[in-house]
Amino acid sequence: MIVTVIGTGLIGGSMALSLKEKGFASRIIGVDNNTGHLIKAMELGIIDEVATLKTGIRDAGLIILAIPVDAGVSMLPGILDGLSGGRQVVMDVGSTKANILAAVREHPLRGRFVATHPMWGTEFSGPEAAEHGGFAGRSAVICDREQVDPDALELVEKVYDALEMRKVYMDAVSHDIHAAYVSHISHITSFALANTVLEKEKEEDAIFTLASGGFESTVRLAKSNPSMWVPIFRQNRENVLDVLNEHISQLRKFKSCLEKENYEYLWELIEQAGEIRRVLNK
Amino acid sequence: MIVTVIGTGLIGGSMALSLKEKGFASRIIGVDNNTGHLIKAMELGIIDEVATLKTGIRDAGLIILAIPVDAGVSMLPGILDGLSGGRQVVMDVGSTKANILAAVREHPLRGRFVATHPMWGTEFSGPEAAEHGGFAGRSAVICDREQVDPDALELVEKVYDALEMRKVYMDAVSHDIHAAYVSHISHITSFALANTVLEKEKEEDAIFTLASGGFESTVRLAKSNPSMWVPIFRQNRENVLDVLNEHISQLRKFKSCLEKENYEYLWELIEQAGEIRRVLNK
Repeated sequence: MIVTVIGTGLIGGSMALSLKEKGFASRIIGVDNNTGHLIKAMELGIIDEVATLKTGIRDAGLIILAIPVDAGVSMLPGILDGLSGGRQVVMDVGSTKANILAAVREHPLRGRFVATHPMWGTEFSGPEAAEHGGFAGRSAVICDREQVDPDALELVEKVYDALEMRKVYMDAVSHDIHAAYVSHISHITSFALANTVLEKEKEEDAIFTLASGGFESTVRLAKSNPSMWVPIFRQNRENVLDVLNEHISQLRKFKSCLEKENYEYLWELIEQAGEIRRVLNK
Repeated sequence: MIVTVIGTGLIGGSMALSLKEKGFASRIIGVDNNTGHLIKAMELGIIDEVATLKTGIRDAGLIILAIPVDAGVSMLPGILDGLSGGRQVVMDVGSTKANILAAVREHPLRGRFVATHPMWGTEFSGPEAAEHGGFAGRSAVICDREQVDPDALELVEKVYDALEMRKVYMDAVSHDIHAAYVSHISHITSFALANTVLEKEKEEDAIFTLASGGFESTVRLAKSNPSMWVPIFRQNRENVLDVLNEHISQLRKFKSCLEKENYEYLWELIEQAGEIRRVLNK
């Protein structure tokens, strides 16, 4: 099958690599408004050819939309308009799902679109960041499947089977709440932690010679790209605010323990946090 | 040289393994108030023999104190009392330095003690968590070296050379401030993030099927042991509170951006956080 990838960055590029490797895609067409990315993606063998949006849509059996979520919402209706009808399928891979589904709710070709979110990524971006086999073993969320034509759903399920992902079905509203908890808030804490420490560095040059693996691990996501993350936070604003408020109130408990020198409760809070072991080993 | 390790957990055990491997230690004596740890450490070949505190001190050229920081502060004066004088050296590896140095400031054998902090660890604990070569490439802080006998300093420098660590010299007060920024706060954010999400899980079972690598990375440290961390936060309380206040105020900036829908400033905050790249690649 010919697959067109709109957006040849980390996620689109990694999908292209894996789908080609697994024999799912016979040919990958790349569409990107960033010419530098297209050239790089060709050089790296991520895509086989470059096309305009119009011909990229026309020639593909599967179109993967892998661009920032705001751009995805505004482009998707036009992409569905461009389908020749028939058996073509469009899927997106964005980190928020309610808005993009709202944008095509009444579209006559709504059934050709599958809203998904493969739960994998790194803090890097662009075609150079694309990885072979990055998705394997992670979850892929498929939203509101009952609104999708059965053949379109089946094709996208095959995509995620090829990527060796665990398929999880969920409505878009639940997805956006859960994503705020297990992905979006992690990014905010990481950005804020980086800023906390960078603020201090202005006074003290030496501070980072001490940075250890624990610091690197918690602050790694702070390297993530604002062009991807601002639209996510914007689209998932209410859920992210809820979780952020909860997180600040959890931090205040630690603060209060230290202020009041209540070390028994501090112990409890830390012990309780250790319960996350149970979850991470799932 | 015979080395006694007091505390045969993650850090003491990993040092024992490396010092033996590198030929620095001819024999490792283990001292621990946890008998299970001693048995495990023998089984794993981390230590060669078990001793009481008294004979462990008596028989060693180098004594490594690798126990929680509160226990370290209370035991160190007695350990120095037990030295036969001469050439024996004691070093600690705790995450806070001002308190332990204050505890022996007036001790007649103060010069035999070297206060250090190797900036490496994992979220696991006990002898099973000990790793070969874990310290390599990281920084080891040596505090207040001007108060140490030259031969004692030289021996500890050889220890860190054997571990392939970068030696950093610093006064204890500066160390504790920097450690609050690049290590202690990361643990608090991780504990608080775990509690934020676990709180939500009570309502929603499905949430963790979605947990991705980004979440795991920011929450990994939440598995750390309270028996190690409560004493650290207690001893470094004022610095940790300063950093925690700063971190909460950085998080409030994100909150305010979202509340006011000020996406330009949100973009700036994220871009600014990305400066951490410069630091992590050092």
